[in-house]
Amino acid sequence: MAAPSKSLRPALDAIGKAIDQRFDRLLTVPEDTRAPLFKAMRHAAIGGGKRMRPLLVVASCDLFDVPRERALRVALAIECIHVYSLIHDDLPCMDDDDMRRGKPTVHKAFDEATAVLAGDSLHDFAYDLLSHEDTHLDPFVRIDLIRALTAASGAMGMAGGQMMDLVAEHTAYDLGGVTRLQQLKTGALIGFCLEAGAIMGDVPEAERTPLRGYARDLGLAFQIADDLLDVEGSEEKAGKALRKDEDAGKATFVSLLGIERARTQARMLIDQAIEHLAHFDHRADLLRAIARFAVERDR
Amino acid sequence: MAAPSKSLRPALDAIGKAIDQRFDRLLTVPEDTRAPLFKAMRHAAIGGGKRMRPLLVVASCDLFDVPRERALRVALAIECIHVYSLIHDDLPCMDDDDMRRGKPTVHKAFDEATAVLAGDSLHDFAYDLLSHEDTHLDPFVRIDLIRALTAASGAMGMAGGQMMDLVAEHTAYDLGGVTRLQQLKTGALIGFCLEAGAIMGDVPEAERTPLRGYARDLGLAFQIADDLLDVEGSEEKAGKALRKDEDAGKATFVSLLGIERARTQARMLIDQAIEHLAHFDHRADLLRAIARFAVERDR
Repeated sequence: MAAPSKSLRPALDAIGKAIDQRFDRLLTVPEDTRAPLFKAMRHAAIGGGKRMRPLLVVASCDLFDVPRERALRVALAIECIHVYSLIHDDLPCMDDDDMRRGKPTVHKAFDEATAVLAGDSLHDFAYDLLSHEDTHLDPFVRIDLIRALTAASGAMGMAGGQMMDLVAEHTAYDLGGVTRLQQLKTGALIGFCLEAGAIMGDVPEAERTPLRGYARDLGLAFQIADDLLDVEGSEEKAGKALRKDEDAGKATFVSLLGIERARTQARMLIDQAIEHLAHFDHRADLLRAIARFAVERDR
Repeated sequence: MAAPSKSLRPALDAIGKAIDQRFDRLLTVPEDTRAPLFKAMRHAAIGGGKRMRPLLVVASCDLFDVPRERALRVALAIECIHVYSLIHDDLPCMDDDDMRRGKPTVHKAFDEATAVLAGDSLHDFAYDLLSHEDTHLDPFVRIDLIRALTAASGAMGMAGGQMMDLVAEHTAYDLGGVTRLQQLKTGALIGFCLEAGAIMGDVPEAERTPLRGYARDLGLAFQIADDLLDVEGSEEKAGKALRKDEDAGKATFVSLLGIERARTQARMLIDQAIEHLAHFDHRADLLRAIARFAVERDR
């Protein structure tokens, strides 16, 4: 039996704490003029966010009995990439956001230049974490993780999706276009979270299909839910500004499908995501719960 | 006998061509709305710059008979990091430069958001290049390269040096402070260029000392020469705005030492750099020529 989504709260609290503790230990502030850089990295990386991506990494690693401490290193790496992308995304020249995760954005709490460098530094730190033998003794595994991450986060993945999003104000994307944009912008990194478990667990390529299907459907459902939250949610709960896509005239799943069809589509994708996990036993309960949570988040 | 520095021109031309050809082949522009991102990456990466870092990588790899095509992949990776750092450095919130390598900076030729993403994408591409088996069959070698690069380019290296530089306008750095700043901001990446040859050539740690000494002395001499060019050079030849440090009231080797002592210091460092290579035969001639070139560049 799948766990009900309300049971996700303890798992989210636990991963949040685990990630915060490790960032706190790893990102020590030097006593020289580099201090603002490290403070800015800590401001962005510690305390905040749902830590959905780290939880996905841990849940995926649990399927293959990967030791928890190693899984957490991969989780930290993916969170570094996510956080760096948020810092750069929030810059005045990008989305120009003042609030993120209920706190001032890095360029507001520090300044723009420090924000650029803090993002760049977390970007490197992700690869540093993955390259270390504490992540896995087998260098082939570490190389596989790094290659998968460059594909997910670079121009062929997340950054490419962000470029598509930049021109969205002047581009009439249809449903296929928005789907492609989101598959790159958020889906690629979510895909990496699931792939990471398979890489760490040394799962043969052919057996990774269910996880990839789960990641693809979850990623889209997650984005549709985000679009719905953007229209229906409260800025206070979200910890960031909402309704910016609508104001900018960007096509979203909700603007193209309408609220009801978007909601139906998200639920259908979640059912499909969970079906991909059919041949996994109770060890996939956390992934099932994450999927349900993705479309039932607080408004 | 060491080659005279005038003989460096063919080597510089050859490496420039080799790098341009490979970037041209690797950075193909997709026929969709991601196109501006790839065009911006090409704008920054192809055609321009002295390609000093790629040449150092190749020269260092030549010492240990590393196949040229593999050495060039490492050279491309380090150039990706250098170029990404220039793109972000040139942003209005950082140095606010309009010209770079004789062309409009990326945010001028495109826009700021595209520049941020192009830098981020080249950053990932560096790690992508190093992680591929075309760079080296042994995954331990690839992991070593990646770890050395994260150390050289992240918060403990280049980005940390850039942070020190950001606060330089409000910090009275003495000679030790400026030296430390430059060792991180430009020295760390130059250090990686030399280390890369030793890693690719599987040279034991204990035997890397001469290369590290060469890199340290060359890096400082190179920076002093840059400071001299900044005071004495022509903007046309440099392909970028000059005398910005002076205007901002930042301490430099020249402002702290004066022109004559700075020039003497640079020459002494170059002599010292070349001495480190004493037990290498003619295969180190290229490294010797690069060292001489570093302090004899066109004004």
